[in-house]
Amino acid sequence: MNYKFIKCIIGWILIFEACFMVLPLAVALIYREKEGVWFVVSMAICAAIGGLCILKKPERKSIFAKDSLVAVALSWIVLSLFGALPFVFSGSIPSYIDALFEMISGFTTTGASILSDVESLPRCMLFWRSFSHWIGGMGVLVFVMAILPLAGGNNMYLMKAESPGPSVSKLVPKVRQTAMILYGIYIFLTLLQIVLLLIGRMPVFDAICTAFGTAGTGGFGIKNTSLSGYSSYIQIVTTVFMIAFGINFNVYFLILMKKYSQAFRSSEVKVYLSVILVSILLIVWDTRVMFGSLADGFKHVSFQVASIITTTGFSTVDFNMWPEFSKTVLLALLMMGACAGSTGGGIKVSRIIILVKYVLREFQTLVHPRSVKKVSVDGRMVEHEVVRSTNVFLIVYVLLFAISLLIVSLNEYDFTTNFTAVATTIGNVGPGFSNVGPASNFSFFSPLSKCVLMFDMLAGRLELFPMLIMLLPSTWKK
Amino acid sequence: MNYKFIKCIIGWILIFEACFMVLPLAVALIYREKEGVWFVVSMAICAAIGGLCILKKPERKSIFAKDSLVAVALSWIVLSLFGALPFVFSGSIPSYIDALFEMISGFTTTGASILSDVESLPRCMLFWRSFSHWIGGMGVLVFVMAILPLAGGNNMYLMKAESPGPSVSKLVPKVRQTAMILYGIYIFLTLLQIVLLLIGRMPVFDAICTAFGTAGTGGFGIKNTSLSGYSSYIQIVTTVFMIAFGINFNVYFLILMKKYSQAFRSSEVKVYLSVILVSILLIVWDTRVMFGSLADGFKHVSFQVASIITTTGFSTVDFNMWPEFSKTVLLALLMMGACAGSTGGGIKVSRIIILVKYVLREFQTLVHPRSVKKVSVDGRMVEHEVVRSTNVFLIVYVLLFAISLLIVSLNEYDFTTNFTAVATTIGNVGPGFSNVGPASNFSFFSPLSKCVLMFDMLAGRLELFPMLIMLLPSTWKK
Repeated sequence: MNYKFIKCIIGWILIFEACFMVLPLAVALIYREKEGVWFVVSMAICAAIGGLCILKKPERKSIFAKDSLVAVALSWIVLSLFGALPFVFSGSIPSYIDALFEMISGFTTTGASILSDVESLPRCMLFWRSFSHWIGGMGVLVFVMAILPLAGGNNMYLMKAESPGPSVSKLVPKVRQTAMILYGIYIFLTLLQIVLLLIGRMPVFDAICTAFGTAGTGGFGIKNTSLSGYSSYIQIVTTVFMIAFGINFNVYFLILMKKYSQAFRSSEVKVYLSVILVSILLIVWDTRVMFGSLADGFKHVSFQVASIITTTGFSTVDFNMWPEFSKTVLLALLMMGACAGSTGGGIKVSRIIILVKYVLREFQTLVHPRSVKKVSVDGRMVEHEVVRSTNVFLIVYVLLFAISLLIVSLNEYDFTTNFTAVATTIGNVGPGFSNVGPASNFSFFSPLSKCVLMFDMLAGRLELFPMLIMLLPSTWKK
Repeated sequence: MNYKFIKCIIGWILIFEACFMVLPLAVALIYREKEGVWFVVSMAICAAIGGLCILKKPERKSIFAKDSLVAVALSWIVLSLFGALPFVFSGSIPSYIDALFEMISGFTTTGASILSDVESLPRCMLFWRSFSHWIGGMGVLVFVMAILPLAGGNNMYLMKAESPGPSVSKLVPKVRQTAMILYGIYIFLTLLQIVLLLIGRMPVFDAICTAFGTAGTGGFGIKNTSLSGYSSYIQIVTTVFMIAFGINFNVYFLILMKKYSQAFRSSEVKVYLSVILVSILLIVWDTRVMFGSLADGFKHVSFQVASIITTTGFSTVDFNMWPEFSKTVLLALLMMGACAGSTGGGIKVSRIIILVKYVLREFQTLVHPRSVKKVSVDGRMVEHEVVRSTNVFLIVYVLLFAISLLIVSLNEYDFTTNFTAVATTIGNVGPGFSNVGPASNFSFFSPLSKCVLMFDMLAGRLELFPMLIMLLPSTWKK
C-alpha cells in the first residue's frame, strides 16, 4: 500500500475542505451570524492537519487499484469527520455522532437528517449542509483532480472508484480534462436552476440551497416541510432539474459536441425516462382520490417520482400517507436509482439493464444451447469485466442490505421502518416510509444503528467496493 | 420442442396422480367419509386423460434442456390443476382458484393455506393435502423416473430441472438408481418419524399427516393451531426431523456407505447447523421475557427456527408477536432456506456459500490483482458454470421478487404483509408476518395476487428457471 500517497491525498482533501468552508463563512458574515466563527476554527484545524499531511511529497506516485479504493474511502470519511466540526462547535447539533450522520448524509447526497427542526439552525449551518450535497454530488476527488495533477497518469483508478455506475468512460483522452468538463456542465446546470428559481421569486438563499440539493440529488431542505411551502412554479422547476441531474452527464457532453444522434440513442436514458413516465401514470391512477384535481395530482406525483428515482429526497407532500401500491412503486424507484454517470444514487438504471440482458441471454442459451450471444447495450458489446462486476455489485448489495437490516432491527421498530431506512441510506435517497417517512427523521435510531446507516450511506455513494474493501484484512497486509 | 415426449410425460404424471389418490380414498373408507367418492371421480378423470396422453409413444426419446424444463414446469402445473379437483367436487374448497392455491401450496411444500378452519375438512381431504407435501418434497418426476425408464439416457436433464440446489450430483452412475436411493432414504426417515410420534401417543392419523408435512418440509397442519396443541415430546421430535429433512440427502447416502469422514466434511451442513444454533441463541435472548422458563423458550424457539430455515412452516407459537429483531432473523432464515439436495426450499445454503466465496474472491483480485483464485467448496473447485447459474439465480430471484411485490401491493395491504407473502411463497415456507402470520391465512388476497403467489410457489420449488422459461416467447418458437 502506498500510504504516503494516500496521506498526501487526504491532506489535499482537508485543504480543499477548508476552502469550501469559505462559502458558509461568507453566509455568516452576510447575515451577521456569530456562529460563523466556528467555521474559522474548523478551517484552521482542516488547514493545519491537511498542511502537515502534504508537507512530505510521496516518493512514488504510482498507485494500484487497491490504493485508490482505500484513498477514496478514507477521503470521504475524513471529509465527513471534519465537516461535522462546525455543527458540534456551534452547538447546532450537540452530539458528534449526530453531526457526523448529518454530514455523511450531506456529502453522500442522501439527505437523511437527524434534525427535527431545521428552521432553528443558523443560515450558515443550513448553507453548509446543502453545500455538502453539491460537493458530494459530482465527487470530491474528481474535483481535486480537476485542479491538481495529483496521481500522474494513474488517476483513472481514482475516478473509477468514485464515479457512479458500472463503467466509466472518459469523455476526452485526459482524465483531468474529463473532470473539468463534467464540473463545467454541473456548474452551468446549477446556475441555470438558481436563475430559474429566482425568476419564480424564491429568496436568493433558498434558491441557492435548493439548487445545491437538486444538483447533488441530495435533498436536505431548509424548511421543516421540505418544498411543500413553495409555489407550483418552483416545484415544477425543481422537478425538471431533478430529472435532468439524474441523466448521465455524458449525454450533455455529447449534446455540447453536437453529436445529437449519439446523445439520444442512450438506452439507459430512454429506460430512465420511460420508467419515470410509467411510474407517474401508475401513481396518479392509484392516488386519484387524494388530490383535488388531476393537475394537482400530476404535479405532486411527478415531483415525488422525480425526487425518489433520482435519489434526491425532497418532498411536497407526505407520500408516506399514499396507498401501498404507490409506495411500493416508489420503493422500487428508490432502490433502482438514476442513470450511471449522473449525481444520482441507487443501483443505477444501467446496472438493471445489464442484469436483465444478462439473464435473458442466459435463458436464451438454455433454450438454444448453440446461440452464444454477448450482452450488448446501445449496439456496443458490454465487456465481460463489467458484467462480472455488476453481478458482484448485486450480491454485495443484497448481503450488505441483509446484514444492515438485521442490526437495525435490534431497535425493535417495525419492519417497514427498518427496511426502508436501510434502502434509503444505501441508495442515498433520504426519506423512507413509516417512522422514517418524509415527515420524520432519523434521530430516534440507536448509535449502533446510526453507525450502520452511516456506513451504508458511504458504501452506497462509493458503489460498495471502496468501503467494503476497508473491512477486508488482506487489504492491510503487506 | 419434443411435444410428443412432453405429452407422454404429462400422461404418466396424471396416471401416477390417479394412483396417489388411492391413499386418501382409503382414508375415506376407513373413516367412512362420503367425500371419498370424489377421489374416485378425480382418479377416473386423471386416468382417462393420462391414458389418452400415453396412447401414442413418442418417436424420438431424445430431449434437450429446454424440453425437460418445460416438461417439469408443465408436470407440476398439471399435477396441481387435477389435484385440486377433489376439493372443488366435494365442496371442501368451493372456489377452484382457492383449491388450486391450496394444491400448489401442497405440492410445492409451501404450506400456505387459504383455509381459516382446517379442522372442518373431512379427514380424506386433510390427508390429501398433507400427502401432496410428501409427494412434492422429493419431486414427482424423480419418483416417476425411479419407476419408469422414461427418458432413456437423457433423464439427468429432468432430474437437474426438478432437484433443488445449484448443482446435482449423481450418487451412483445411473440416474434411476440415484432416484431410488433418494426415495429409499426419504421413506425410511418418514417411517421413523411416524413411529417416534406414535410412541409419543400421537393419534395415527395425526402422526402420518405430521410426518408428511415434516418430510416434505411442507407445513400444512391438520389443526387450526398447527402443532401448538401437541405435547413437548411431539414438538421436539418434529424439531429434530425438520432439521434432518433440511440436510442434503447425499450426507445420508454417504453415511449409509460408511463414508463418515466425507459425510461430515460438508461445509454446507456445517454452515446450516451453525446458522440454526446461532439463530436459536439470538432469538432466545431477544424473546427472553416472553416465555415462562428458559427451557420453554428454547423449545419453542428451536422449533420455530427449524421450521422456518427448513421452509416447513409449522408453528407452536404465534411468532408474529415476537420482537422485531427475532422476526428479522426468522425472515433471513426464511429467505436463505435449507441445504441443496434436501426437501427444503429457499435460496439454499450452498448458493449463499458460493455467492459469498465468489464475492470474497473478486475482492481478493481487486486487492491483489495477480492472485487468480477459483471458488472452491469442500476442497473441490466449483465449476464456472455453477457459479454463473448461481449468479443468474440471484438476479432472477430479485427481479421476480420485485415484480411480485409490486403486483401484490395492489391489494393495498401493508408492506410487511406483501413482502413476507412473496418471500414465504417463493421460499416455499408458508407463513409470513403481519396479515400472513402463522395465525392467519392467504384467503384475503385478490385472485390476481393469488395467481402471482401461485406462480411464485412453483417458481420457487422448481428453482426459478423452468417456470420463467415458460414465459419466454423464444421457448415456443420452432
